[in-house]
Amino acid sequence: MPIVVQKYGGSSVADADKIKNVARRAISAQEKGNQVVVVVSAMGKTTDNLIKLAQQVSEEPDEREMDFLLSTGEIVSCTLLAMALKAMGHDAVSLSGAQAGIKTDATHSRARIMGIEPRRVIKELDKGRIVIVAGFQGITSRMDITTLGRGGSDTTAVAVAISLGADVCEIYTDVDGVYTADPRLVPEAQKLDEIGYEEMLELASLGSKVMHSRAVELGWLYKMPILVASSFSNNPGTLIHGGASMEIGNKVRGIAHDLNVAKVTVVGVPDKPGVASAIFDPLAKASISVDTIVQNASIDRVTDLTFTVTKTDLNKAMKVIAPVVKSVGAKECVSDTRLAKVSIVGSGMQTAPGFAARMFRALYEAGINIELITTSEIKITCIIDEAKTSEAVRALHKAFELEKGV
Amino acid sequence: MPIVVQKYGGSSVADADKIKNVARRAISAQEKGNQVVVVVSAMGKTTDNLIKLAQQVSEEPDEREMDFLLSTGEIVSCTLLAMALKAMGHDAVSLSGAQAGIKTDATHSRARIMGIEPRRVIKELDKGRIVIVAGFQGITSRMDITTLGRGGSDTTAVAVAISLGADVCEIYTDVDGVYTADPRLVPEAQKLDEIGYEEMLELASLGSKVMHSRAVELGWLYKMPILVASSFSNNPGTLIHGGASMEIGNKVRGIAHDLNVAKVTVVGVPDKPGVASAIFDPLAKASISVDTIVQNASIDRVTDLTFTVTKTDLNKAMKVIAPVVKSVGAKECVSDTRLAKVSIVGSGMQTAPGFAARMFRALYEAGINIELITTSEIKITCIIDEAKTSEAVRALHKAFELEKGV
Repeated sequence: MPIVVQKYGGSSVADADKIKNVARRAISAQEKGNQVVVVVSAMGKTTDNLIKLAQQVSEEPDEREMDFLLSTGEIVSCTLLAMALKAMGHDAVSLSGAQAGIKTDATHSRARIMGIEPRRVIKELDKGRIVIVAGFQGITSRMDITTLGRGGSDTTAVAVAISLGADVCEIYTDVDGVYTADPRLVPEAQKLDEIGYEEMLELASLGSKVMHSRAVELGWLYKMPILVASSFSNNPGTLIHGGASMEIGNKVRGIAHDLNVAKVTVVGVPDKPGVASAIFDPLAKASISVDTIVQNASIDRVTDLTFTVTKTDLNKAMKVIAPVVKSVGAKECVSDTRLAKVSIVGSGMQTAPGFAARMFRALYEAGINIELITTSEIKITCIIDEAKTSEAVRALHKAFELEKGV
Repeated sequence: MPIVVQKYGGSSVADADKIKNVARRAISAQEKGNQVVVVVSAMGKTTDNLIKLAQQVSEEPDEREMDFLLSTGEIVSCTLLAMALKAMGHDAVSLSGAQAGIKTDATHSRARIMGIEPRRVIKELDKGRIVIVAGFQGITSRMDITTLGRGGSDTTAVAVAISLGADVCEIYTDVDGVYTADPRLVPEAQKLDEIGYEEMLELASLGSKVMHSRAVELGWLYKMPILVASSFSNNPGTLIHGGASMEIGNKVRGIAHDLNVAKVTVVGVPDKPGVASAIFDPLAKASISVDTIVQNASIDRVTDLTFTVTKTDLNKAMKVIAPVVKSVGAKECVSDTRLAKVSIVGSGMQTAPGFAARMFRALYEAGINIELITTSEIKITCIIDEAKTSEAVRALHKAFELEKGV
């Protein structure tokens, strides 16, 4: 019997009525002849409320205890969903991450899944039950509870789908699918019927926050098709899968944007071997993700080194960098937070000329200055003035004719 | 190093300040040179709120799911207490019932502890940590979460204390200890410094609801001293232990009362073998606890059979009894709910004459009619008019001079 894994986020299980809605959707999937596993997040604001509670007893709550505390949120929604299913006459059972065999490393608050032992899940499915699995959590080899970090329920769902050899992993959320741009900025934005993993990854990591990028990466690695759709409608949604890229290559698929961008420039860096690693090693050790890195052409063996980090990490990054600036003999270090990223995403752009030029022209015609440029196989990103984000996204959406459908 | 197990109930961990208070008390016990294990209940009304949530999705929530749902309440208070301790600079770790090795049978909502494997607790104690254990819960051999029933955290605490060979199990609550009678009824009631397990059991099961009787039974079986005291003061409390009864025997120790009493009378029962079991077997099968049983002297081989059940169980009992009344050839079955129990409790009463007479005289002088009488080794109980409960308790307290201290 085919296996379907469905995941419902916090807003889809926010109250008793919504939980009953999810129950009906799970039943409907089962009645179509599937074995059904449902992964759920915590109800609505539960996680935020638990964090507030923790902050009342400790300014810096211990991470191991925080993980254990937060893991209760998903247990609550899981058990309520199982009760709702039983009340509707369908056998169901809820399982914690631990019971579902989700083994992680011990990196509390952002644990990585090391493997899944789905014996119990399979046993329960074979009894004809709908199996509810608590998202976002796992257990270490020492039997301590971990969480996978915000949005980790998506990762749970994809991982469980892979471990069961499911036909598809369905991520239900409060949006209809993946759009060519943020519909709040671009009213003409079109829903994509399908998209490749890599393209989705670029869109997800750049702020089209439909789903967690780790989940997409995982799906990509194991070729698990992922359907993103609304939990409040029966619209078809967007299928993220491997076949998409090849068939529909050489085309811009969407415009992504990200407001969480800060720029750091180390001014007057001596151009000699080892300087870059002297700067970036301490950032990596401090777990600060560095994004775009640009080094200007060297004049008289002195250069400027510019890179971006998230606004959230900026203060930490400046603190880490300060002693390094001195030790490498650079002049100073300056930062700018009034920035945003806009990107065009589509597979095969690198091999098809003209995309970059068209992007730069569109921004120029909209009167938007480009501060930094960076490119990858499937995207071209410009760092621009934060205040111009909406204009830039709209201009690019129009320039690549995305309102005509893709 | 001596081991102390402390248990704090829901009202003692009801908010962040109270949790910090518990943390300070645990630290103080550690600083006196003890290894400290703290068992906690869910915060304030958490359990009630979770039950309400369950009732919104299901009229009759599945018991396995309900146990799993309710078990989250204790995890929340446990983790918060561990965070508070760490914030105060003391190493601590919280453990679920499962992590603490509390194995139970699979009787959901009222599971029995089958055994405790305290390896993890011991390991954490040996690291110098204060160990917080979630009360009220355990895990079955199938790895499903169970709860021990209301008040089960007391049982968890005593069981953990026994498994660790603790010196004492301290139950902290919102009362100062065990009194000679309910102080709300008898202002002169005296706090007992110590009491025997059996006496405590009679007082606990009769409505002096200081702690769960299962916990006292368990303490008795394994001779674990239990201290009952207030979590909001440093008053000495009442020590429940084995030595007490012998030293202070032949004395009434307290007056218990219970308003949850209903009387059932099967009228005109043929006095022949097998009738009693025909009546009480179906009640036992329906899990209805029958208390006092009185059979009047047989006249012409026909008798009346009277017994008491809790008011809560009365409807169920009458339903179970109805077909039996017919089949054994009795006349009818009547019930009365306007009743209460008052008891005098003290070890060695059976062997010392005069207690019963003194009790009956006190009630007679207070103008209180006795409906039924029952006795055990350490108590004498009278069933009386519910409306006379306070008067009866006060009269007995005075008759046995309990205001003078015991």
